[in-house]
Amino acid sequence: MSFDFSLTPRVEEWRGRIAEFVGGVVIPREQEAFTNGLDDDLRRELQEAAKGAGIWAPQAPADLGGGGFRFDEAAVLLEEAGTSLLGPLALGCAAPDEGNIHLLNMVATPAQREKYLLPLVNGDVRSCFAMTEPPPGAGSDPSAVRTLATKAPGGWTISGEKHLITGAEGAAFSIVMARDDESGGATMLMVDTDTPGFVVKEHARTIDSTMVGGHCRVLFEDVFVPDDAVLGEPGLGFRYVQVRLAPARLTHCMRWLGAARRAHEIALGRAVDRELFGQRMTDLGMAQQLIADNEIDLVAARALLWQSCWELAGGDKGNESSSRAKVFVSEAVGRIVDRSVQLAGGMGTSEDLVIGRVYADIRAFRIYDGASEAHRMSIAKRTARRARTAADKGNEVR
Amino acid sequence: MSFDFSLTPRVEEWRGRIAEFVGGVVIPREQEAFTNGLDDDLRRELQEAAKGAGIWAPQAPADLGGGGFRFDEAAVLLEEAGTSLLGPLALGCAAPDEGNIHLLNMVATPAQREKYLLPLVNGDVRSCFAMTEPPPGAGSDPSAVRTLATKAPGGWTISGEKHLITGAEGAAFSIVMARDDESGGATMLMVDTDTPGFVVKEHARTIDSTMVGGHCRVLFEDVFVPDDAVLGEPGLGFRYVQVRLAPARLTHCMRWLGAARRAHEIALGRAVDRELFGQRMTDLGMAQQLIADNEIDLVAARALLWQSCWELAGGDKGNESSSRAKVFVSEAVGRIVDRSVQLAGGMGTSEDLVIGRVYADIRAFRIYDGASEAHRMSIAKRTARRARTAADKGNEVR
Amino acid sequence: MSFDFSLTPRVEEWRGRIAEFVGGVVIPREQEAFTNGLDDDLRRELQEAAKGAGIWAPQAPADLGGGGFRFDEAAVLLEEAGTSLLGPLALGCAAPDEGNIHLLNMVATPAQREKYLLPLVNGDVRSCFAMTEPPPGAGSDPSAVRTLATKAPGGWTISGEKHLITGAEGAAFSIVMARDDESGGATMLMVDTDTPGFVVKEHARTIDSTMVGGHCRVLFEDVFVPDDAVLGEPGLGFRYVQVRLAPARLTHCMRWLGAARRAHEIALGRAVDRELFGQRMTDLGMAQQLIADNEIDLVAARALLWQSCWELAGGDKGNESSSRAKVFVSEAVGRIVDRSVQLAGGMGTSEDLVIGRVYADIRAFRIYDGASEAHRMSIAKRTARRARTAADKGNEVR
Amino acid sequence: MSFDFSLTPRVEEWRGRIAEFVGGVVIPREQEAFTNGLDDDLRRELQEAAKGAGIWAPQAPADLGGGGFRFDEAAVLLEEAGTSLLGPLALGCAAPDEGNIHLLNMVATPAQREKYLLPLVNGDVRSCFAMTEPPPGAGSDPSAVRTLATKAPGGWTISGEKHLITGAEGAAFSIVMARDDESGGATMLMVDTDTPGFVVKEHARTIDSTMVGGHCRVLFEDVFVPDDAVLGEPGLGFRYVQVRLAPARLTHCMRWLGAARRAHEIALGRAVDRELFGQRMTDLGMAQQLIADNEIDLVAARALLWQSCWELAGGDKGNESSSRAKVFVSEAVGRIVDRSVQLAGGMGTSEDLVIGRVYADIRAFRIYDGASEAHRMSIAKRTARRARTAADKGNEVR
Repeated sequence: MSFDFSLTPRVEEWRGRIAEFVGGVVIPREQEAFTNGLDDDLRRELQEAAKGAGIWAPQAPADLGGGGFRFDEAAVLLEEAGTSLLGPLALGCAAPDEGNIHLLNMVATPAQREKYLLPLVNGDVRSCFAMTEPPPGAGSDPSAVRTLATKAPGGWTISGEKHLITGAEGAAFSIVMARDDESGGATMLMVDTDTPGFVVKEHARTIDSTMVGGHCRVLFEDVFVPDDAVLGEPGLGFRYVQVRLAPARLTHCMRWLGAARRAHEIALGRAVDRELFGQRMTDLGMAQQLIADNEIDLVAARALLWQSCWELAGGDKGNESSSRAKVFVSEAVGRIVDRSVQLAGGMGTSEDLVIGRVYADIRAFRIYDGASEAHRMSIAKRTARRARTAADKGNEVR
Repeated sequence: MSFDFSLTPRVEEWRGRIAEFVGGVVIPREQEAFTNGLDDDLRRELQEAAKGAGIWAPQAPADLGGGGFRFDEAAVLLEEAGTSLLGPLALGCAAPDEGNIHLLNMVATPAQREKYLLPLVNGDVRSCFAMTEPPPGAGSDPSAVRTLATKAPGGWTISGEKHLITGAEGAAFSIVMARDDESGGATMLMVDTDTPGFVVKEHARTIDSTMVGGHCRVLFEDVFVPDDAVLGEPGLGFRYVQVRLAPARLTHCMRWLGAARRAHEIALGRAVDRELFGQRMTDLGMAQQLIADNEIDLVAARALLWQSCWELAGGDKGNESSSRAKVFVSEAVGRIVDRSVQLAGGMGTSEDLVIGRVYADIRAFRIYDGASEAHRMSIAKRTARRARTAADKGNEVR
Repeated sequence: MSFDFSLTPRVEEWRGRIAEFVGGVVIPREQEAFTNGLDDDLRRELQEAAKGAGIWAPQAPADLGGGGFRFDEAAVLLEEAGTSLLGPLALGCAAPDEGNIHLLNMVATPAQREKYLLPLVNGDVRSCFAMTEPPPGAGSDPSAVRTLATKAPGGWTISGEKHLITGAEGAAFSIVMARDDESGGATMLMVDTDTPGFVVKEHARTIDSTMVGGHCRVLFEDVFVPDDAVLGEPGLGFRYVQVRLAPARLTHCMRWLGAARRAHEIALGRAVDRELFGQRMTDLGMAQQLIADNEIDLVAARALLWQSCWELAGGDKGNESSSRAKVFVSEAVGRIVDRSVQLAGGMGTSEDLVIGRVYADIRAFRIYDGASEAHRMSIAKRTARRARTAADKGNEVR
Repeated sequence: MSFDFSLTPRVEEWRGRIAEFVGGVVIPREQEAFTNGLDDDLRRELQEAAKGAGIWAPQAPADLGGGGFRFDEAAVLLEEAGTSLLGPLALGCAAPDEGNIHLLNMVATPAQREKYLLPLVNGDVRSCFAMTEPPPGAGSDPSAVRTLATKAPGGWTISGEKHLITGAEGAAFSIVMARDDESGGATMLMVDTDTPGFVVKEHARTIDSTMVGGHCRVLFEDVFVPDDAVLGEPGLGFRYVQVRLAPARLTHCMRWLGAARRAHEIALGRAVDRELFGQRMTDLGMAQQLIADNEIDLVAARALLWQSCWELAGGDKGNESSSRAKVFVSEAVGRIVDRSVQLAGGMGTSEDLVIGRVYADIRAFRIYDGASEAHRMSIAKRTARRARTAADKGNEVR
């Protein structure tokens, strides 16, 4: 049979439980977290509750204690978790840990699984992923990485500077991406954050505020790690980056889609109660346009996201597919939240109404995990290459 | 199993055959049709060829001689047919006949099936659907219909004025939508075009040019039709309109998606051969942006369209779903073709390069079958109603 | 002579001085203000410095100690002041005081000028303008005002609730807009903030952060004010609102245009130093598009703004003209800052780079002083009225 | 005095006369021209009438028989002429003749003025400007010109291929842009169209239809012209191109702004007469949005255009300024006409209602005279160069 957009009963059931949990347990803690900041105490409390509710880590492998859902099924569940900015953290499916779990599960050695993966899946510790560097280092272009891993007797010495490392403050370990002159490529290494020379500097004062552990500048001052700190094999760093990136950008899409839906629902809930210029607000054409465009963007983003996730779930590397989905979804959720601000009016930019918080927090998603421009360049190059090949084969474009 | 975006082997096979047919048989006739107009002789010739190629009427019921594909499967095939503006006509899946086939198949009496449906499916005749009227009559708002069907002894007398009736010139019969003071509702009637009082007046001089039979003003000057000319039952006209509209707007989406893809491919084929400002054109960032945005819009439009078609195939009435898809797809294909014009440069607005023809022909799709604004209003009203109900139940938006 | 876009030597001279002052004195204090909040101490210090630099209150009447510039000339100077988020405050031309100065100058009695206007122009005190109310009260539709002013012996009693009152915390007085059942219209009143019953409640936790005194909820609990607290005459509140609104929305445009230009310049300054994908960033087409679109939006917004200000300076009430300018400029500056974020990359959403702060602070401008939707409605109604009149006169649209 | 947006009495007077002439004389001939094509007989008839009405060639020098208006004043008058697609031709200010008049007036020798300029200003003959070539020749990048002018005894031999040469069919002479290996630059030459080897081939079948003489492919088959056929001096072709291009793209903006305003007015005239969904159409919010956005785009485009024209009138070369105006205006008029189509509904794409004709004719303006992308690249490069210089001077961006 071709085409199926239906949810399995198990997905439906988890989705219902997650919705109930987010509405009943997570959302009541939002204003507190917005005001006082989001710390590890609140994180642990919410995570315990999520485990109790039987909705822990939907995307993580079942044998590690997660939900074991297929990647495209996880799209449904992580969207639901994302309806609170605290939801993904509560459910053990927030960045950057969720992406690190995926990567470790794919390439970690048995010892690394034991030491890093298990406590991470279980929420005992947090982690970070140290790739991004200040210009002219790694960013939308990972191949520009400048942090250096140098082979030393019995291990490696890492030196360099990273910035915008989400969750670095308070993380137990970091996966580090480094240029490796040995292999001429790049190598990923596991670094415990209490290793000498691993220094967390200031947090970037960005306008988002719901990432535990901030976005930190991190120095690697001749950090020595033993040979078994290499993740997988040396020299395969660029390959591993791809293993992490495509699914990680899609789980971001899932979560932010939930956040955008929430902003839309809040704005809508206010609109149905308001009158303006002598009419019900929802009878005003320009309000209707905001509402309808949000509904349309939500379903279009979801349909495209599901398709891309389905392709990855089926074994596709998904670079081009996930690039297209990332650009579309990140821009669509931006539009949705912007319209929700507008629909909500004067309080639309406030944390009190949550929408303002989402507006500020969601902006960077068009930049991280590959800026829209970088993905567009990549999509266009692949497209042009195919067109070039077709033309060379004498298959004239019709 | 949840989620499946794969094509069945039979769909794949038909798609391949259609692609080959459009490329080998239809496209070579395009410039001739653009220059001399598209007439019934060319139509019949292409239709015979399509039958010979085993790709006739993919969406029509198998027992009537069509392909018998499920509605969501047809989405794949009608997109392929749409890659030439002549393709849908050649394959027996063009508007307005395709929508009339669907409607007749759902509600016609056995006698009407025999008399009207069979020759229509077979391509022996063409038909038209007479609903739209000059303002202030029926348009985006079908309930404003003013053409009147009056009960007379042994039949009905129809009087009124329609305009923009696609394919009226040369049609064998028309399905007519008329206000019916008997029932207080609306009634649909079958009118042979040689009935006295059925008068085809001037064609609107619109900028599109590939619809056989034009967009005509049609007068109903006291047209008498017998009782068995009523389609289905009297008084159910508004219900039947809905039977036709949701799928008809989606088949439009399918075909225009193909046309937009074609425009993109032509522009791309030129771009890979060009140099500009000393660089390959496809290495220029702004060209890459046009290309990438086209690729993204194509996949997003397709994913949303498939989902909506899948819902209709499963029995959903699909009013809201098809409204969302219609707005998104009609606007996405408009953007795609506009970017293709820009990418193609100086010849981008020419028929010689086909893109210019598509640009002119596709514009009206944001208006007919419900203007974007009418669909947005409808989507917003339904959304607000749900939000209102949720709020009344005390389910505060979280 | 028709058409002149040149600046007078005096405008040029002030502009140069303001640019120097903002760059040399104000900008060095920005990070401190972002981190610790913007308080009255810093405000006074900067204001003293501005007076010393001979650039105090460019828009205020010369006989009150301001620059005395014509309104369209002020557009040039307030844009320059706006290049720092602290600049307008430093120069005595920030909202809401600047708008209150204008209003008081137009309608205050001699005694009110003495008591309120002079210290306000001089920066001795701050003020607020209490119009906006929680739904369903006054907002984009001022006529929905619900706060009530009741005639009492020797004065008036005001009761009601306002919200989002910018600068209320720490203001010396408030201009209050109230429904007035006596006149059947509205009346504006001067209220010293130490009057019993004037209660400043919580600040809305909005994502902007550079308005001294926050956006507060304010209660009027049977606040009694004497008869001479009426601003101008009773019953003319709606007329006075118009006196304030048109110029106030244009001075907002001036200041935010400066802020947007600054964000663009910062992003540009980074871009010219960066390399990406092996090219200079400013040679990448998609970066060029961001840069060029910013340049275009800046000049288009400025040209339209100048024209609208010139009309007001010439005595036009400018309701329609200022509505058009407000919609265009508020949306253009939003686009410019959004593109600047994107161009700046990972640090684009940070306060460290200033752009992130501007991004968060500028969003509400599409809502306050009339949401874009309210202005569009007003523009369309006036346009339709003219078209209706023309049609009725038999002047068929050609 | 700084800033003046007022019109002089003489401009007001001409504008009134032009409006009356276009409404009374030109518009009544539109449908005929749309149906039968626009030929030189109709052109001559309308031009005689325009001369009789005292509104001939507003932009042409007074000593040559034109209106002698300053360039920024001409902006007002050419917009008015543009309200009919036939208007500019009728008034002697249509492309390509208007641009050729400007160029010849700046650089032609006395003999060339006598032979070519005088009859052209007078409307006795038509001309064309042969620069654009099929890829990979001259287009958005004039420096790619491949047509060759070779020095021969007593003259030059021109060989090459041009395409999209507007007005070539029926022109008396052509200004030809050719690479000139003698000078290593480019040279412009005057070629009478009856010179042997000057061959007008097929018209591109573009979707516009109101340019007399079509957009033709033109062959130069070893065309010999005498030495005095060189326009101005040999080797200065690229400089002369700039003399022509900046003002020519702005006069296009003027004329198309008029066409867009006309489309808007027609759509508006229909809207005020329509009811839809039980409301007056102009009370529907989404219609109001279309109307308001058109009004805003019209005034923004006009303000920016006037400013750019004022700069050119003052002696500025205006390359960057005219690039910005061209991008903004060409895209704004595109949006305006697109919204007008939508507002007009079913007949919006028809020639009967004129809007459809404008929609098709206006599209190419985002491509010719420099595609939007080429202008954006040029704007960004100049902007980056300034930012680079500022940074190098140690003027850190603040």
